[in-house]
Amino acid sequence: MTQSIPSFLIDVMAGIEAPSRSLWIEAQQRLDDLTKPPGSLGQLEALAAQYYAIACGQVALPLQSAVCVFAADHGVTHERVSAYPREVTAQMVHNFLRGGAAINVLARHQRAELTVVDVGVDAAFDDHPGLVRASVRRGSRNLLREPAMTAAERDAALQVGLRLAGTARSNGHRLVAVGEMGIGNTTAASAITAMLTKRSVGEVTGRGTGLDDVGRNGKLHVIRKALKRHFPAAGDYPEPLEILRCVGGLEIAAMTGFILGAARHRIAVLVDGFISTAAAAVAYALCPALHDYLFAGHASQEPGHRHLLRYLDLRPILHLDMRLGEGTGAVLAIPVIESALRLLLEMATFSSAGVSTATR
Amino acid sequence: MTQSIPSFLIDVMAGIEAPSRSLWIEAQQRLDDLTKPPGSLGQLEALAAQYYAIACGQVALPLQSAVCVFAADHGVTHERVSAYPREVTAQMVHNFLRGGAAINVLARHQRAELTVVDVGVDAAFDDHPGLVRASVRRGSRNLLREPAMTAAERDAALQVGLRLAGTARSNGHRLVAVGEMGIGNTTAASAITAMLTKRSVGEVTGRGTGLDDVGRNGKLHVIRKALKRHFPAAGDYPEPLEILRCVGGLEIAAMTGFILGAARHRIAVLVDGFISTAAAAVAYALCPALHDYLFAGHASQEPGHRHLLRYLDLRPILHLDMRLGEGTGAVLAIPVIESALRLLLEMATFSSAGVSTATR
Repeated sequence: MTQSIPSFLIDVMAGIEAPSRSLWIEAQQRLDDLTKPPGSLGQLEALAAQYYAIACGQVALPLQSAVCVFAADHGVTHERVSAYPREVTAQMVHNFLRGGAAINVLARHQRAELTVVDVGVDAAFDDHPGLVRASVRRGSRNLLREPAMTAAERDAALQVGLRLAGTARSNGHRLVAVGEMGIGNTTAASAITAMLTKRSVGEVTGRGTGLDDVGRNGKLHVIRKALKRHFPAAGDYPEPLEILRCVGGLEIAAMTGFILGAARHRIAVLVDGFISTAAAAVAYALCPALHDYLFAGHASQEPGHRHLLRYLDLRPILHLDMRLGEGTGAVLAIPVIESALRLLLEMATFSSAGVSTATR
Repeated sequence: MTQSIPSFLIDVMAGIEAPSRSLWIEAQQRLDDLTKPPGSLGQLEALAAQYYAIACGQVALPLQSAVCVFAADHGVTHERVSAYPREVTAQMVHNFLRGGAAINVLARHQRAELTVVDVGVDAAFDDHPGLVRASVRRGSRNLLREPAMTAAERDAALQVGLRLAGTARSNGHRLVAVGEMGIGNTTAASAITAMLTKRSVGEVTGRGTGLDDVGRNGKLHVIRKALKRHFPAAGDYPEPLEILRCVGGLEIAAMTGFILGAARHRIAVLVDGFISTAAAAVAYALCPALHDYLFAGHASQEPGHRHLLRYLDLRPILHLDMRLGEGTGAVLAIPVIESALRLLLEMATFSSAGVSTATR
């Protein structure tokens, strides 16, 4: 199968280099020499070593972190796939800008710089500090009736994300959390997940923000019909960018670009829940070399998320049954990563502390 | 069965009142009105509501938290039940006092005031800020040969913990994390766990700080023999304080007192891993009313821990496969609890933010 990847993406992908193995090993060796039984810090050790390698051994503490929330509407909301009306996307963007949403509270607490990106909300926004106006279209097209985006729209959204990754780099951010807001976007994420992981639509589709059984059945029907329309050949393995174009969304495309761009700039990426992980899965399908830049903030309650995490071979940091999006589960994981790094860099070693090692 | 509970404990237990149900409900109602789908913050909602009720609706942020690390040696180390030599307990106390251990790093990062309590280390310590010298005995007795403590020793250790809870209250701490250091103490904790949860010794006994198979088999043998010696009647339900005396340890007794005292003073208690949870289980067996003051910081890799958590009906906050002790898993959970409270208190409500609620 031919991959028709736009040239701007080919350049980015060619620039993505996996973090240094030798720095990774150096970190693990230091961890083994700290005053604790080997391995007793569990997952913290893996987190610290991975970040250390990403940062080329130059870890700045406190972490210079940021969170980007990509917002867009979805044409498929006309099929009543969400418990909330479409207008909520714009209302929540206003809530973000006023500082009242969950992600505002968590980003303030973790001192992560918050940027809200309108990549396709069905509303007009005034200029606002903290808002990036980069709307490609006032919502994606209805994926049940036609591809969610044209190739040009998808590429424009990818470039919005790439641009934001460049901004993160210029601003000195070394860890970026990825969040989103978009009524209807679990429908798009489920469709992407079914295609990438080859799981059934039933396995990867949940209640989103709170559908009842009737609502979820309708959503299943919409996704099945859409996949049949866009990918009629059973067992077909379409290109990741084509999956994104047909059943994705503008914010998902932007997050895909953001994640590719962050990896290109050697910035650690902390994905949040189902939607942002779907974007990471598209990015990974395009460019497996970015894998080791990814951290999974938490395990979402959305059933498709665990299939994506398995596909990506990522172990989530938190397990709190959250299903909010906005980047909340990612930002909540920042102190765990920072703690892991402080342990790596600030603990005493057996020799320096005069503590005996194991005898058996 | 008659309970022979010392009078100082009866007074404490009588003063423990469960947190207010109506404040708990008030918090949940507020959570439901915040700009997010109902329940979408998952376990954070339960954490916030529980803490809000404990704090009588007067939540001070940032949290005024502390961590107490209780250290003691164990006579049973003469049976070679640990991968590390007994001297490591004292060496690690020195490491705590110099600031080089994992708990130092995490407590500094979380701004939790750290106190190290010598309740029975087999060493002499000079005065040091941050060290409470309250040694009852230079290590518990060998529980394979005789009860680990006399009733007087156990009660003295309980009172050390009660006193520290009083200090936490005087210092204005509203959340206390409970940690420990004591080579050999997973042997004591496994014995306590087997007795309280009625699980087999094999199910509740792990590798501690890193025993190999031969070492773990020896440990199993020691615990089985000790339980047979102290509690010969099969199906016996001995008093919790008698279990503590025969197969516990000085730091475990002190933590039991600390937890009872904290609940008495309406201070939230964050238990750490296997050993501190064993102390919480003894406290809960004595006084079930303290249940709702307890938070479980994390799920330890020690196999007995999940049985204790089930016995206590506690859901751990973190799942990071840690098995270090010292209070590390508890302190690491502090930012999650604080985040939950900030969300409860700082997020906008649907009405204040002009966001539409669910339509289906």
